Parts: sequence; structure tokens; C-alpha cells
Amino acid sequence: MDMEKVNSMDFGEFVDVFGNVIERCPLIAAAVWSQRPFSDLEDLEKHFSAFIDALPPSGQEGILRCHPDLAGRELQRGTLTAESQREQSRAGLTSLGVEERLRLAELNARYRARFGFPFVLAARLSDREAVPRELERRLHRPPAQELRAALGEVKKIGRLRLADLLGTDPSRL
Amino acid sequence: MDMEKVNSMDFGEFVDVFGNVIERCPLIAAAVWSQRPFSDLEDLEKHFSAFIDALPPSGQEGILRCHPDLAGRELQRGTLTAESQREQSRAGLTSLGVEERLRLAELNARYRARFGFPFVLAARLSDREAVPRELERRLHRPPAQELRAALGEVKKIGRLRLADLLGTDPSRL
Repeated sequence: MDMEKVNSMDFGEFVDVFGNVIERCPLIAAAVWSQRPFSDLEDLEKHFSAFIDALPPSGQEGILRCHPDLAGRELQRGTLTAESQREQSRAGLTSLGVEERLRLAELNARYRARFGFPFVLAARLSDREAVPRELERRLHRPPAQELRAALGEVKKIGRLRLADLLGTDPSRL
Repeated sequence: MDMEKVNSMDFGEFVDVFGNVIERCPLIAAAVWSQRPFSDLEDLEKHFSAFIDALPPSGQEGILRCHPDLAGRELQRGTLTAESQREQSRAGLTSLGVEERLRLAELNARYRARFGFPFVLAARLSDREAVPRELERRLHRPPAQELRAALGEVKKIGRLRLADLLGTDPSRL
């Protein structure tokens, strides 16, 4: 999909296509549409990031709370978004053994209790061994620092999803 | 549901229950959770409104763009949220004749072209005769005034949905 196509979309089409660039937050794509025309992927990405950065902390935490746990309840129930399902699957999180899954569930619960939002990680840049290691490491960070790190992951996920939609090779980003 | 129950919810439960108080914007419920405990429905409603008011105009327009047209494409396709389906149905919008539907489609298209967001109205407080009349009236307003009016409708819809969830009689609001 080229940028001319993107820039010609009405808001309904734009939200249909880009509504899940930020997980379960079509509001953000719908707001970004106001900033068209876009010159390229980086420009589009910049507007998604700027919107996130301009939100009050409760709104930024709200974005995180719209994300599923990794290898969590939504995956078990089959209620993940298509994008999350693909990402968790590629990272090997859909085929964990019982022990690995229970270990991750326990770490996820501790993280949620400590920070008030779920552990968010760009799963496509990780794998089943790295996820619990990274979770354990981030569990001990100061909350303000961890909020920034988690939003950084949201943006990485968004960049990869944009690259998919625009047919860009993510290794070139 | 009493407020003690609401205040005891973790963010996952809270977003499951209140995620569509603002149509297709679970981010807002997820942000409002940060403000708990809530004293009553008015208090909860106040936090939803405050979040909307604090957004930049692009974000406020983004909220509107997450709403479906009245008697529009989503209704035809059966892809409305459960809440919207119920509201449009109660207003008689699911049983329009062909002429009424075409007339409304034309007005909706003109409104979207003029303002860059769809016509939003608390359908439960309206009916099939009033909807096109109100649409025509609002079509001629200055954009900044219309944005405020449309957000007022979003808040009315949210208040009625909150009242439903909390089992409050909406006529007492």
C-alpha cells in the first residue's frame, strides 16, 4: 500500500485499516487521521507516537491496559486480536508447556499487581525464553521508568504493525 | 451492581464491564480506572467526561470517528456493538423504509464530508422522525460549535450506558 492510497482514505477506511496499530485503541488511529497527508511510514509513526506522548499518565496507562497478557487468558480463550495472536504465536508463546505457562502467569500477575497495567513487550522481537527473563527484570524497576519502557514497547509494536500494513520490510526500519 | 463491587474490580474486569461506555474506546474506561474509588454514578460519569474534555481536538474527533452512522453501513452489515444495536433499534432505526434509509444515508454523507466525523446522537433519547430533522439542523452549524454538541451527545450516550450497567433508572438521572 503506498502513501497516496493512505492519504486518500476517508476516516472510516483509515480506522478499518490502522485501527489496531495501537492494540484495541482505534481512537488513536482515528485521531491521527486528522494529521494527514502523511509523507511516509516514519511520518505516520511519528503522529501515533506524538498522540501517545501527549496523553496524561492515566491515558498512557489506559493504552497499556488495553493490551492482553502474554500467554494469558485471552490467548487461552481465543479472544486475542488477529495481530496479537500472530505476534504471540511467532514468539512461540502459543505452544508453551504447562510449567512455562504457569510461571509466566505468576510473573504477569505480580507485574499487574505492582504497576496497575499488564506487561507489554514487542513479542515479535522476542521469544519464549526471553519473555519471562525480561518480565522478571522489569518487575523491579521504579514505576515511572517502567511506564516509559512499556510505552516504548507499544510504539515498537505499532511500528511493526504499520510496516506490515504498508508492506515495508521491518528490518529496514 | 453497587459501587463497592465496581471499586473492587481489577482493571481487566473494569474494562470488560465499562469498556464500551464510550463507543469502541476501551482506552477511556481503562484510563478512568486510575481514578477509583468512585462514590456513585455521577462521580464515575464525571471522570469519563473529564478525560474526554482533556483530549486535544484531534483526540475528541477521534472519539466521534469511532462511532457508527445511524442506520448506516454497520447496521446493514450486522457489525454494530451490542449497545449501538440496542439503541438504534429502540429508536426505530432498524426498521426504516428504503426512502427513509436513503435520505439518512445522504444526510450522513454530507455531515461526514463537512465535519470529518460522523453524526452522533443519543438515539435512545430520539426517534426515527427526529433523527433526520436533528441531522439537518446540525449540518449547518459552525464546526467548533458542532464538535462541542457532538461530544455532548457522546456523554449522554455514556451516561445512559453507565445507568444500564449500574441498574439505575435513567429517568432519575
